[in-house]
Amino acid sequence: MTNPGAMDLGLSERLRPIHAAVRDMVRNEIAPASEEFLADVPKDGRFVYTARQKDILEGLKATARDRGLWNFWLTDSERGYGLNTVEYAYLAEEMGKAHLGAETFNCSAPDTGNMEVLERFCTEEQKAPWLPRLLDGEIRSAYLMTEPNVASSDATNIAMSCVADGYDYVLNGEKWWASGAGDPRCAIYIVMVRSGGEDQPKHRRHSMLLVPAETPGIEVLRAMQVYGDDDAPHGHMHIRFTDVRVPRSAMILGEGRGFEIAQGRLGPGRIHHCMRAIGHAERALELLCERALSREAFGKPLAELGENYDIIAKARTDIEMARLLCLKAAWMMDEGDPKAAAPWISAIKVVAPNVALDVVDQAVQMYGGQGISQDTPLARMWTHLRTLRLADGPDAVHRRQVARWELKKHR
Amino acid sequence: MTNPGAMDLGLSERLRPIHAAVRDMVRNEIAPASEEFLADVPKDGRFVYTARQKDILEGLKATARDRGLWNFWLTDSERGYGLNTVEYAYLAEEMGKAHLGAETFNCSAPDTGNMEVLERFCTEEQKAPWLPRLLDGEIRSAYLMTEPNVASSDATNIAMSCVADGYDYVLNGEKWWASGAGDPRCAIYIVMVRSGGEDQPKHRRHSMLLVPAETPGIEVLRAMQVYGDDDAPHGHMHIRFTDVRVPRSAMILGEGRGFEIAQGRLGPGRIHHCMRAIGHAERALELLCERALSREAFGKPLAELGENYDIIAKARTDIEMARLLCLKAAWMMDEGDPKAAAPWISAIKVVAPNVALDVVDQAVQMYGGQGISQDTPLARMWTHLRTLRLADGPDAVHRRQVARWELKKHR
Amino acid sequence: MTNPGAMDLGLSERLRPIHAAVRDMVRNEIAPASEEFLADVPKDGRFVYTARQKDILEGLKATARDRGLWNFWLTDSERGYGLNTVEYAYLAEEMGKAHLGAETFNCSAPDTGNMEVLERFCTEEQKAPWLPRLLDGEIRSAYLMTEPNVASSDATNIAMSCVADGYDYVLNGEKWWASGAGDPRCAIYIVMVRSGGEDQPKHRRHSMLLVPAETPGIEVLRAMQVYGDDDAPHGHMHIRFTDVRVPRSAMILGEGRGFEIAQGRLGPGRIHHCMRAIGHAERALELLCERALSREAFGKPLAELGENYDIIAKARTDIEMARLLCLKAAWMMDEGDPKAAAPWISAIKVVAPNVALDVVDQAVQMYGGQGISQDTPLARMWTHLRTLRLADGPDAVHRRQVARWELKKHR
Amino acid sequence: MTNPGAMDLGLSERLRPIHAAVRDMVRNEIAPASEEFLADVPKDGRFVYTARQKDILEGLKATARDRGLWNFWLTDSERGYGLNTVEYAYLAEEMGKAHLGAETFNCSAPDTGNMEVLERFCTEEQKAPWLPRLLDGEIRSAYLMTEPNVASSDATNIAMSCVADGYDYVLNGEKWWASGAGDPRCAIYIVMVRSGGEDQPKHRRHSMLLVPAETPGIEVLRAMQVYGDDDAPHGHMHIRFTDVRVPRSAMILGEGRGFEIAQGRLGPGRIHHCMRAIGHAERALELLCERALSREAFGKPLAELGENYDIIAKARTDIEMARLLCLKAAWMMDEGDPKAAAPWISAIKVVAPNVALDVVDQAVQMYGGQGISQDTPLARMWTHLRTLRLADGPDAVHRRQVARWELKKHR
Repeated sequence: MTNPGAMDLGLSERLRPIHAAVRDMVRNEIAPASEEFLADVPKDGRFVYTARQKDILEGLKATARDRGLWNFWLTDSERGYGLNTVEYAYLAEEMGKAHLGAETFNCSAPDTGNMEVLERFCTEEQKAPWLPRLLDGEIRSAYLMTEPNVASSDATNIAMSCVADGYDYVLNGEKWWASGAGDPRCAIYIVMVRSGGEDQPKHRRHSMLLVPAETPGIEVLRAMQVYGDDDAPHGHMHIRFTDVRVPRSAMILGEGRGFEIAQGRLGPGRIHHCMRAIGHAERALELLCERALSREAFGKPLAELGENYDIIAKARTDIEMARLLCLKAAWMMDEGDPKAAAPWISAIKVVAPNVALDVVDQAVQMYGGQGISQDTPLARMWTHLRTLRLADGPDAVHRRQVARWELKKHR
Repeated sequence: MTNPGAMDLGLSERLRPIHAAVRDMVRNEIAPASEEFLADVPKDGRFVYTARQKDILEGLKATARDRGLWNFWLTDSERGYGLNTVEYAYLAEEMGKAHLGAETFNCSAPDTGNMEVLERFCTEEQKAPWLPRLLDGEIRSAYLMTEPNVASSDATNIAMSCVADGYDYVLNGEKWWASGAGDPRCAIYIVMVRSGGEDQPKHRRHSMLLVPAETPGIEVLRAMQVYGDDDAPHGHMHIRFTDVRVPRSAMILGEGRGFEIAQGRLGPGRIHHCMRAIGHAERALELLCERALSREAFGKPLAELGENYDIIAKARTDIEMARLLCLKAAWMMDEGDPKAAAPWISAIKVVAPNVALDVVDQAVQMYGGQGISQDTPLARMWTHLRTLRLADGPDAVHRRQVARWELKKHR
Repeated sequence: MTNPGAMDLGLSERLRPIHAAVRDMVRNEIAPASEEFLADVPKDGRFVYTARQKDILEGLKATARDRGLWNFWLTDSERGYGLNTVEYAYLAEEMGKAHLGAETFNCSAPDTGNMEVLERFCTEEQKAPWLPRLLDGEIRSAYLMTEPNVASSDATNIAMSCVADGYDYVLNGEKWWASGAGDPRCAIYIVMVRSGGEDQPKHRRHSMLLVPAETPGIEVLRAMQVYGDDDAPHGHMHIRFTDVRVPRSAMILGEGRGFEIAQGRLGPGRIHHCMRAIGHAERALELLCERALSREAFGKPLAELGENYDIIAKARTDIEMARLLCLKAAWMMDEGDPKAAAPWISAIKVVAPNVALDVVDQAVQMYGGQGISQDTPLARMWTHLRTLRLADGPDAVHRRQVARWELKKHR
Repeated sequence: MTNPGAMDLGLSERLRPIHAAVRDMVRNEIAPASEEFLADVPKDGRFVYTARQKDILEGLKATARDRGLWNFWLTDSERGYGLNTVEYAYLAEEMGKAHLGAETFNCSAPDTGNMEVLERFCTEEQKAPWLPRLLDGEIRSAYLMTEPNVASSDATNIAMSCVADGYDYVLNGEKWWASGAGDPRCAIYIVMVRSGGEDQPKHRRHSMLLVPAETPGIEVLRAMQVYGDDDAPHGHMHIRFTDVRVPRSAMILGEGRGFEIAQGRLGPGRIHHCMRAIGHAERALELLCERALSREAFGKPLAELGENYDIIAKARTDIEMARLLCLKAAWMMDEGDPKAAAPWISAIKVVAPNVALDVVDQAVQMYGGQGISQDTPLARMWTHLRTLRLADGPDAVHRRQVARWELKKHR
């Protein structure tokens, strides 16, 4: 590094045109298309797409790809943009401003994380059937981690059994909150299992496997609802594995290396989630201000009433602080020391969803009945953000991490 | 009054056995039956009941009625219990602890308020087709107030047109958030309309009418969703009136008296909502504590971790304060001066839903993924409570009332 | 009890005239006199009274006594009013509205608690030199509990040594935060000491002694400051005991009974503190409203600006809830089961000071520079209230108590 | 600008050695000396220095100057360091960590702002008697703005009369909260007066004058207390001007240009205040953590009890966000468009003191009685920070600014 002191959290020169293209496409094309997409509810069944929905989504993807706005998350500069985390963060924020924002650019969770696992940890044989199709946006994938009967805040509890039997592994158990597994295009699961016994060290007992969604013995039990919403057509599915057989070649990296893989997957993923949350918050504040200026009560625009100025000022200030903290965490990540970056990521994992939830809640309140309904994107944003306070570790666990790191300085 | 000083907020002697019977029935019979009811989702259509759902609900109602636990809201002592507001409040809290709690005792909104309107303001001819069947729990009703295109926080904006034409009135316009109007049993609407012109005083321009749900020209457009949940089979419906004709005899009290009727309807209704919200909060705290003691992480029960003691103490304390404030408001109501009671009702209208939302949110967080899902009653409680911050006046409007009343003391 | 259900939290019939007399005297006489008292700062030294200060204070006391408004805390009805806790609480609130409010009626801390100890636990010989003069308001007293070098949140840590030697006990150690010990009229200390060894059960190792302030070996080291204020002429003194000798007859009740005495002393004392805190809050809200109406900025009275309505509504609502909770705790106390009352007292011990601090802080903000200065009573109220979050157990310890009691229901 | 996108919020290369020198001197020399300084209270009078206090302060200043750590605020690179705002902000944070931190480096308020006014807006004749001595740390200065009888949140209300009379101006009126005017070294005041009438535009009616503290007719009435603390020996003085005569040459820039001067003065000053507030917060968190690890209760270090992890995590996170926002505001300032920077400065003016107050309050609570006393720097930090929520515009006014700027985007 020529200048060790530089902590540039700005939009880089090379990112500016890309950022502008993404921002404009989200605002002018993807956002209105998303509204139409969501309103076109299928008449028959839940986890299906209507013809119109398919057209909308594939149309957006084709356009984005034509414009070269595709797979931004690819960090090597040969095939992708070679963006660093700070740069990608700026794009993630824009993608967070419309329902189909991330998918349009083939940058949606959990696919980006899954593609990274395939890219970085898998053999060519493992990649072949899935990675090219994922990179093309042809199929989708799911990540099966959480289980119904264990405290997921401590991942060493994961219990799905994985027993070697001849050339195969045999899996038994249940997973839930498998996000995206309801999507009819979802073809491949990455599954965390318990492969080792008590004799192994605690973080060497688990493994990750590639399991095709069509494998016999897999049964999708139901869609988990989020505040009554089943998130169709993606879904957070509850899945049962009964004597599911996969060949030994399905094992990623080798037995006992599940945590090693998970670790590399989570850091950037959390930053992306957080920056999309900031995007949600920005969009909500925009909607809030528009309503505050256009709606009248007691003879004045809402903006002029009660604490609305204070609400707006607080929202703006909180968003700015949360964004800066996310960018700082991204910059720490780019500095190359994941251990040093960890408490920063824990900090934003708490801050970003909570700030965004507050802003969205204030916007909901400003819209009244409309705010809680399907007539604005606010309610959907809120339920999505609310899950982020639990996914990838609940708030309390991340605060604990930050505190332990802080106290360590004084021991 | 023999003792002007007494402010008895306790459970009265006569209420004790009734209260115990309601409490026990809610806990032991209605709560488990509610879970079964909610899980038995109809396969065909949304706003229908399954045979099993009907059995559960009608079974509970029959049992309650057999035990003499029915229509507690009837305030005259000849046909009803003659409970005062403080007494009814204690029962409302218990009913708030299970999904079918209020309906089992024929005490659910908006029917209680609508029955009161029928009882107090309607002629025998108006009562005959509806009131007995409502008192029997045979049909249900809806209250059509809010409209999509006006700021409902200021009810003088209500705009549905009502034009006299021969022996009839002809209604045109749209209503939304007509709670319960999706229920197949919903037979009668009470509808607020704009009947008078600019020449009338502001609070004499509106009227209330009895409109049978089956009247030609009424079209239920859709169910409003609450954070993605359509609240089937009750629903908050969006309804269009096109040249809907009702006879002049459908008018309640007379033209221009809509606000007079609405006024009498809202006060007690708000107290009931608030006490049911306290019931929600109590139930959520119970669930929270059970989880905190039974679930382990990092080798300890959750109760012992982080700020969970503080969360529990805060929840308990907030609930006690909110309940006492509701009881005080109910006591003010019973004192017989609605003007004096008004700021107290505004105060609890803000406090009770917000306290309950906080407690439920903490419980959700304690349950993790399960908390936001259909596997606990928490998510459903939360969305219901969230609507209370908007229904019958948003928080900001009620705070404004409290502040103006406070400042008046110093002018 | 004839009516087990009655929970009368109102002003009792018999209290009404007393309450009115106290309220009016505080507002019309004591409050303005307090301002004059505080402004008349002595030129020479800190812990002295000016002649004018003496006149003011003794004048108020004589007036109150003449009117029969004296020693309300005496709970037997022969010599005192025989008020129950709920009744006394209403008076304590009024006394909290002026700096000299409590002392005027001979009801100030720590004297009321100390007089109760003398009254209830002491022999006639022990009472004779102090109790009559305290009841007359002639002298004042201090309660020496907290020590500089131990965690006072756990009182079993108290360490001042007390060694029997012939007919005497010899005391060595340091005490601090001895409130009122700086007052030149302070004649007697009640002192908690460690008299027993490790062989005694944890709550039988401590004793309480009557120690005249003039005893040789006692050295007042300094006044502890509260946010820079030394609280002269009362003071929270830091005191050193070096071979302080008291006769064995100075021991209250007997060796090892210190906690037994302390226990009886704290419950009502905490309620009094909390109700005086509510009085502070009421006074602050009054000042806030007056300022909000009388001061203009940007062409409007402050009341009309920004979130001031919301601030006022929140303050009013919080005060009402805190008061009701205090009254409920007082009522629990009067029910006669101190164990059952304990969590309620812990709850208000957290709520009342925090609510009052919030209200005062908002009032300070409304007054700007004047609010933080000596020109309103607000800053002084704030520092006093801030100490209450620590005195008699910090917030965290009381929340812990409430939580443990809540969780016990579910074990 | 060669790279318009760079937003470097890091410590610059050239600042690193300076920053390290300042940081180390504050921690190792100034902080312990400050404690000694504060404990050495003068016996005679308040607004005087003891010989020991003088030695300490002048010793620190001499050392700093010898090391070339002096007048960092001088923004031209010929005589000063030529630091930009981001760089200076990093130093201000370190200076905030000890009571004598800023003064040691001749960087304390209000002198830096006053020196800037002299430097940028005054003639050589005006500079000569004051600026060199201020730059040398020989004398101090005060800034007389706020008045007792007008709403200072709207500075156009300022009313001190200034009437031209022959070669002089004659001033009459009162100022208060003249910070530092109690210091015996304070030699010069910069005074805002009302010089023009209603016929002038609102922001052209005021002027600024240089008024020597010794001018006849100036009477220091009293020290304003901050929560009972008179802030001796600096003081926030209440001053009366009776026919105070200054020559016409005392006028800065010319009649009616008071706001123009004030404007330029406030922006950077607010950033410095905010970064020193961050320094306060960092110091408080340090003290909090040390206590949490070293003190035990209920058999565990406090860190392990209750919500203390959460408190620590929240404090760390809030501080990081507030610092980043301050640095961003400083960077905006350096970009050279004060209008664009204004809402950012308003935002940090609200955030930084409030975050720091929260952290300090938590630290106070962790220390118990010691925390509110003179035995830690916490109470003094708190009262200082509390004044910042009012000085240079109260929170509400700054939030209003942020909200108006936000809403402007949507009009």
